[in-house]
Amino acid sequence: MGDPTAHSCFRTAIVAEDAVLDSLQSYKFNGYAPTVGLPQTRRAVAEYLSRDLPYKLTSDDVFITSGCTQAIDVALAMLARPSANILLPRPGFPIYELCASFRHLEVRHFDLLPQNGWEVDLDAVEALADHNTVALAIINPGNPCGNVYSYEHLEKIAETAKKLNIPVIADEVYGHLAFGRNPFIPMAVFGETVPVLTLGSLSKRWIVPGWRLGWFVTTDPCGMFREPKIIERIKKYFDILGGPATFIQAAVPRILEQTEDVYFNRTNYILKQSSDLCFDMIKDIPCITCPRRPEGSMAVMVKLNLSLLDDISDDTDFCFKLAKEESVIILPGTAVGLKNWVRITFAVDPFALEEALRRTKSFCQRHAKLL
Amino acid sequence: MGDPTAHSCFRTAIVAEDAVLDSLQSYKFNGYAPTVGLPQTRRAVAEYLSRDLPYKLTSDDVFITSGCTQAIDVALAMLARPSANILLPRPGFPIYELCASFRHLEVRHFDLLPQNGWEVDLDAVEALADHNTVALAIINPGNPCGNVYSYEHLEKIAETAKKLNIPVIADEVYGHLAFGRNPFIPMAVFGETVPVLTLGSLSKRWIVPGWRLGWFVTTDPCGMFREPKIIERIKKYFDILGGPATFIQAAVPRILEQTEDVYFNRTNYILKQSSDLCFDMIKDIPCITCPRRPEGSMAVMVKLNLSLLDDISDDTDFCFKLAKEESVIILPGTAVGLKNWVRITFAVDPFALEEALRRTKSFCQRHAKLL
Repeated sequence: MGDPTAHSCFRTAIVAEDAVLDSLQSYKFNGYAPTVGLPQTRRAVAEYLSRDLPYKLTSDDVFITSGCTQAIDVALAMLARPSANILLPRPGFPIYELCASFRHLEVRHFDLLPQNGWEVDLDAVEALADHNTVALAIINPGNPCGNVYSYEHLEKIAETAKKLNIPVIADEVYGHLAFGRNPFIPMAVFGETVPVLTLGSLSKRWIVPGWRLGWFVTTDPCGMFREPKIIERIKKYFDILGGPATFIQAAVPRILEQTEDVYFNRTNYILKQSSDLCFDMIKDIPCITCPRRPEGSMAVMVKLNLSLLDDISDDTDFCFKLAKEESVIILPGTAVGLKNWVRITFAVDPFALEEALRRTKSFCQRHAKLL
Repeated sequence: MGDPTAHSCFRTAIVAEDAVLDSLQSYKFNGYAPTVGLPQTRRAVAEYLSRDLPYKLTSDDVFITSGCTQAIDVALAMLARPSANILLPRPGFPIYELCASFRHLEVRHFDLLPQNGWEVDLDAVEALADHNTVALAIINPGNPCGNVYSYEHLEKIAETAKKLNIPVIADEVYGHLAFGRNPFIPMAVFGETVPVLTLGSLSKRWIVPGWRLGWFVTTDPCGMFREPKIIERIKKYFDILGGPATFIQAAVPRILEQTEDVYFNRTNYILKQSSDLCFDMIKDIPCITCPRRPEGSMAVMVKLNLSLLDDISDDTDFCFKLAKEESVIILPGTAVGLKNWVRITFAVDPFALEEALRRTKSFCQRHAKLL
């Protein structure tokens, strides 16, 4: 799991730190919050997300969760029913598969296409779906691929989901962490085409994954999810979840309103620098290939060319030996559904990243097949 | 839901506030914690609970949860399997029933006996259990009854559970809030007789329910729950839960080690005063009866004598009319499984409590049947 807070170049905004400190020191927020979240927190998230939408969300659309992880669980628990299946991307984020298995949801994987900027294979989506399919999930900006979808591709996803009569789960935990050609467009822009469940959190944009402050939002202007029975069930489910700390919730309105663009721009600048460094140095290592310059999120997928390596059997073997010989940790692609690829997190101090890639190169040279 | 933080006489310990502030300001704990909890937090909870046990718990026995609510869900999710049933107390805490329904666990209720200090009807427990029974749950100190079980009664519960070959879920969220004849004895004292799943949190003893810091602990010296497959499943389940904030977790060792007895004694003193006030004033209101002086927790069950009331149909009607006419909020017993009783929370500023009971008396007099 990549955690940028381990690196001094990534630190949350001063206003975010101050807001939580003030909230804690006010002693007004040591008590229970409503299980769906404090009203002012729900309102602030609705306003924050509405800035980028052609319609306005209300507090009632927003449920506050303990990080995006709990938002994923809420989405899958809400959609699960006997015989249901869900369409998930490959590569993806393994918490989805784990949640699905605990909620007895069958998983069907569609591919993300590396040659097309990791776009969704929409033909595969159509072929996989049937009348028991309850949703299609996307992660944009992409984890683990480092891509950002264009407006046109998101529109096509919405149209495909509409045709299949299923909602889209839009995991936007990396929302706004886009530093390439495509700007970040929330899936909910197409909420009038298809209902969207938007999942997000403070974790990535504010670099505070440990605060566990996320949201589950029905971005659904036509109100498919506003059916009283569905809302009632969601609310009851929230009664058995432990949400985030009340005083952190109480800090959210100030955090969302007062964080300045200069803070966000700085983070994206650092991510752009480090991802470029990563991409450029990988070009110089023959046994691994990065199909595309990263444009968003904090990680990128890189293909292993096993035929160029002498004594490496697969991605897991590669990662274990690299860790043992060079103390460099990268994730085997198998963990995210793509064998013989690896995931590199670039949300790392640039000096450390450069050193890690230098060691990776030396490792690859040492294990190169003699041709 | 009673929330003592609304009353100025209940405030958390200064060391607890300072520990969280320092942890936040250190900027070392904005990142992810392991999903089962920070190692130092798990160790501190193990040491804290071991103080009252005849054996030592280890960090591996402790899982950090987002409040006791999430600990309840973990226990029930872990025990759920097709056709399983669970034995729950009546009256009880409704989150158990809600969790059970989401996890497809059949609920079987045993009575708590008001005439015996709300002890468990152990004959009923034996009659209800079968080979599909997965656990027996108790809440001690008792919510909603305000009782504290004796050593002898807890021992009998342990022996009954042993005979039935089921573990005991011991909800000790009100642990140590005992101010009557019986001291608080953790169920895990009998862990060598029967495996115990202990659920707890900072919420009540430190009066910070909004911090969402709880624990799920296998207090099980014979190691029934230490089977690798069970531990593996619990750990995976924690991967899909959003736990409490990392910086709050990091504050726990200092909170548990450094909170002084004077703080705990003060809370118990206030609760003793307010519960006595409550009990004594109720004696003076003919249409409600409290079967027993409260000795623990923050609430007590009171029986309605409907035959003495003129135009009150049941507990819900009583509570609605009392709220409307006197702006006094008490919980209908139906919400905790006991019709025509009501739950009164006494963790309230004494002046407010006195005024509320005065109004309740006036309400009862106004609605009294003319004999």
